[in-house]
Amino acid sequence: MVAEILSIGTELLLGMVANTDAQFISRELAARGIFVRHHTVVGDNAERVTDAVGTARGRADIIITTGGLGPTYDDMTKQTVCGCFGRKLVMHGPSLEQIHAYFERIGRACTPNNEQQAMLPEGCQVLENGAGTAPGCAFEQDGVHVIMLPGPPRECMAMLNGAARPYLDRLSENALASRYIRFFGIGESELEQRLRPLMERSLNPTVAPYASEGEVCLRVTASAPTSEACEKLLKPVTDDIQAQFPEYIYGVDVDNLEQAVSARLKERGETLAVAESCTGGLIARRVTALPGASDVFWGGVTAYSEAAKIKLLGVPAAILAEYGAVSEQTARAMAEGILEKSGCDRALATTGLCGPDDAGGVPAGTVYVAFAARNAETTVKKMNVRGRGRTYAQTLAAGRALKGLLDSMQ
Amino acid sequence: MVAEILSIGTELLLGMVANTDAQFISRELAARGIFVRHHTVVGDNAERVTDAVGTARGRADIIITTGGLGPTYDDMTKQTVCGCFGRKLVMHGPSLEQIHAYFERIGRACTPNNEQQAMLPEGCQVLENGAGTAPGCAFEQDGVHVIMLPGPPRECMAMLNGAARPYLDRLSENALASRYIRFFGIGESELEQRLRPLMERSLNPTVAPYASEGEVCLRVTASAPTSEACEKLLKPVTDDIQAQFPEYIYGVDVDNLEQAVSARLKERGETLAVAESCTGGLIARRVTALPGASDVFWGGVTAYSEAAKIKLLGVPAAILAEYGAVSEQTARAMAEGILEKSGCDRALATTGLCGPDDAGGVPAGTVYVAFAARNAETTVKKMNVRGRGRTYAQTLAAGRALKGLLDSMQ
Repeated sequence: MVAEILSIGTELLLGMVANTDAQFISRELAARGIFVRHHTVVGDNAERVTDAVGTARGRADIIITTGGLGPTYDDMTKQTVCGCFGRKLVMHGPSLEQIHAYFERIGRACTPNNEQQAMLPEGCQVLENGAGTAPGCAFEQDGVHVIMLPGPPRECMAMLNGAARPYLDRLSENALASRYIRFFGIGESELEQRLRPLMERSLNPTVAPYASEGEVCLRVTASAPTSEACEKLLKPVTDDIQAQFPEYIYGVDVDNLEQAVSARLKERGETLAVAESCTGGLIARRVTALPGASDVFWGGVTAYSEAAKIKLLGVPAAILAEYGAVSEQTARAMAEGILEKSGCDRALATTGLCGPDDAGGVPAGTVYVAFAARNAETTVKKMNVRGRGRTYAQTLAAGRALKGLLDSMQ
Repeated sequence: MVAEILSIGTELLLGMVANTDAQFISRELAARGIFVRHHTVVGDNAERVTDAVGTARGRADIIITTGGLGPTYDDMTKQTVCGCFGRKLVMHGPSLEQIHAYFERIGRACTPNNEQQAMLPEGCQVLENGAGTAPGCAFEQDGVHVIMLPGPPRECMAMLNGAARPYLDRLSENALASRYIRFFGIGESELEQRLRPLMERSLNPTVAPYASEGEVCLRVTASAPTSEACEKLLKPVTDDIQAQFPEYIYGVDVDNLEQAVSARLKERGETLAVAESCTGGLIARRVTALPGASDVFWGGVTAYSEAAKIKLLGVPAAILAEYGAVSEQTARAMAEGILEKSGCDRALATTGLCGPDDAGGVPAGTVYVAFAARNAETTVKKMNVRGRGRTYAQTLAAGRALKGLLDSMQ
């Protein structure tokens, strides 16, 4: 089955909103093994909607429209799509009642244009709107399934997960399963070069890399009649990949580095404190973005100034004077300082110069990360994160600190 | 001029990312008076890209592609689009040099697939990529302008605002000028309701709101033969808006709250320290993301646990025991504690429960923010940030803390 998503709304073409409906619907279809080949966006214009429906009919088995179901004069999806398929619109009693009930509930008069929302394609399956007033609908004609969903993302998602779900489930032929393998410390292009033979050879499961800031995620997706059969297809490929990159893979089916770190700490029953200079609170922020962070995270210090390093972490002024704030010695003293103050099992510290400019003889991008733990020797790693600006450098430094911490807990 | 945005990337059709590039480009085109009539998304598939280019040529004067410029085997935009227009790809020396220089800078080997990125359409205008390695390009043929931009949103935006800007500006007949008015503490729909008469009346300049997490930005854009004429059109409208919302507007043509706070501190020659519990380092992270943060930012504490509040901030254990960690008293003690330890002019503190679940009788979303300053009384504000999940609550709490700090420095 091949699907096309046809989004109707001038606000999308003006860039006032992103097309998150198309993203959300695509994900739901992918999970059902339905291939989406096109997203098309047109404005609230009957001629262009008609053209787009005509094109979609010629290349897709399923057309999902979003938008244009509301009560205002520029909402024209149902009329226009029905015109394409030669269907009449008829008043749907139960929908009309629900619209009346809604206006009664909010204490406003129901205007005729609101009643229009209950006009629906003859013979369609009506899709109740759990989050607004405009109902959606679905029908099959000439071998094409047409599903019309509302445009506001909250309503669109609620309908897709609610009233439209059984309809979609019936359209799906295969089960689908994916593994997300997460890498840190290897570039997308290098990873791909090394995996290209596998990616070209492997059609089921498919293997595709996606880069985000400083990281790469590999999605491995199998399609088969049952989910057990999917798992059987996935296993040899994911095993192969994991065996090839043990030093770069930090997790499978985890969302991010901080989640992997948190889970590892929880397993070990350990706690963490951090002392950040150049990463400026980013590590703390990432760890505390996770619900339940307080189980493993004690807290931390953003020791941005030298005074803060001395006062809050007990870094000796002599070390700062002799080696400078961006040095192995300072990183070590920061990590050991917060370890002692916190009484935690583990601590990490960052100090560096994220730029954009060099300063005091230190090139921008120089970062030291220290890892301290009770009853273990403190280790310090030097890295260079220069090249793509300050925010990128900070993100990369925080990522390397989290990855180093994870590795130290093997 | 009519434009079409053609986004190329299977990740969009799988719903892995939203098509924010199309949104961003649409906005830029709208601001130049260029009408976007279609967005089309296809996968990394030469046949479908070719079809889409063919369709777009027949209905648009400007085709902007995104995606598929990178080094991997599924990056095929340049080859395919050039195929449609009968153009050759040729090696572009300066781009190749830049790619080599980039890899040298980051200390990694430049693989042959990375060099491929410097193959560009013969006779095109090369668009330098300020945020990545893949250059873009633009050319005109048979009355159609083709502009190819990279897919990663950071790179796409940087190129559109950078190297591609003069090309786009030439396609627009008028000069353009914009003001960005930034609001905090008012919802997009309320703002829109209050400004609707102005938005409908005002066609030049246009007034359009854009919401981001917990904030709204109003873009006011004028189009006229000269930039002086633009400024004349802008002034009465921006003055009017500023007079209507003095309590919500925190800046005009600033990027964000932290930048406004930083600038205000710098003007006053003051320094800041922060003590964060529920915001978990987010405020420190936002402030330190700005270059030159060390001029105004001393540092801070992420006092996530009670022990950290006692140890690092000197919050009395008795206060925590009597009032709890999420209380006015604790917020006050945290702010005053870090003010004293740091010797800064100003300090702020956050403590609260960002959820997702209620805990210890405190409803999720309860947050206290305290503002302390030398020779001034500490003030504490209680707020409720519940409703849209943990990350949103943390973002909103950090925003309110920064906005409150800014207001306290009027």
